[in-house]
Amino acid sequence: MQQKNLLIKMALDAWFAQISRTNKVFQQLDDEQLKKEVSPGKNTGVYLLGHLAAVHDAMVPLLGLGEKAFPELEEVFVKNPDKSGLPKPAISYLRTCWTTANNRLETSFMALGVEDWFQKHTAVSLPDFEKEPHRNRLNVLLSRTIHIASHLGQLNLLT
Amino acid sequence: MQQKNLLIKMALDAWFAQISRTNKVFQQLDDEQLKKEVSPGKNTGVYLLGHLAAVHDAMVPLLGLGEKAFPELEEVFVKNPDKSGLPKPAISYLRTCWTTANNRLETSFMALGVEDWFQKHTAVSLPDFEKEPHRNRLNVLLSRTIHIASHLGQLNLLT
Repeated sequence: MQQKNLLIKMALDAWFAQISRTNKVFQQLDDEQLKKEVSPGKNTGVYLLGHLAAVHDAMVPLLGLGEKAFPELEEVFVKNPDKSGLPKPAISYLRTCWTTANNRLETSFMALGVEDWFQKHTAVSLPDFEKEPHRNRLNVLLSRTIHIASHLGQLNLLT
Repeated sequence: MQQKNLLIKMALDAWFAQISRTNKVFQQLDDEQLKKEVSPGKNTGVYLLGHLAAVHDAMVPLLGLGEKAFPELEEVFVKNPDKSGLPKPAISYLRTCWTTANNRLETSFMALGVEDWFQKHTAVSLPDFEKEPHRNRLNVLLSRTIHIASHLGQLNLLT
């Protein structure tokens, strides 16, 4: 296998491994458990579920793969903290958002060729990308994989 | 820049970013704060410090870059859980282990060329590596970067 292909495989394997582990934790936690804080005074499982769903939904436009499906999540779960007082959607809805966002990403990822991963993401301008060619789709994948891990470590505290 | 070089740069950037963030958290937390559990009944900051130091120290032989400097950490911080009852080294010593392990890795990483990252790690046999060429040094780097993130998410709860 070509080394470049190998790298894409490694990055995708890491992404899907984190998604799979996080799915297991969300399946294991019922709604009551999700309402608890991961540590006293810190984020609840519900907030982390909404946050991860919002961030993954936002990856679709960031990677130039389409539009957000759940743009309303950003205000509650990205721009504002857990204790903002803003009303939160039902947990069952957030669970659906999380799964839908990841399924949409998976479908798009499977259709991308190796070279597509080296194209710029949409939050960087073309002149900046020419100077900093690492600001590509693959880098978004890596950084979001790390992002899942940081919150999965916290969600594990609820199990 | 060649795409393969770019990928190594991206993976190393991600590693060093996680190390840097974790260093900041460990510097911010004094020894008393580190003795606290990240959530009631869960691991203490001290255990996570020892655990990360042990895992990073073990990366040196795993990557074929030398011997462990602190082999005694494995029993307490990898093979056994926080509440094992085993005596733990002083926190100041663990802080030194953490920094030393990362500095040794950084020195070795800077000396590795692009192709070196595609060579097998030492926990996979040559026949297995021929079938599964993604079991290389770069994959260790990626998975350990994700590993730091999962514990950094927990350590952040102490700040």
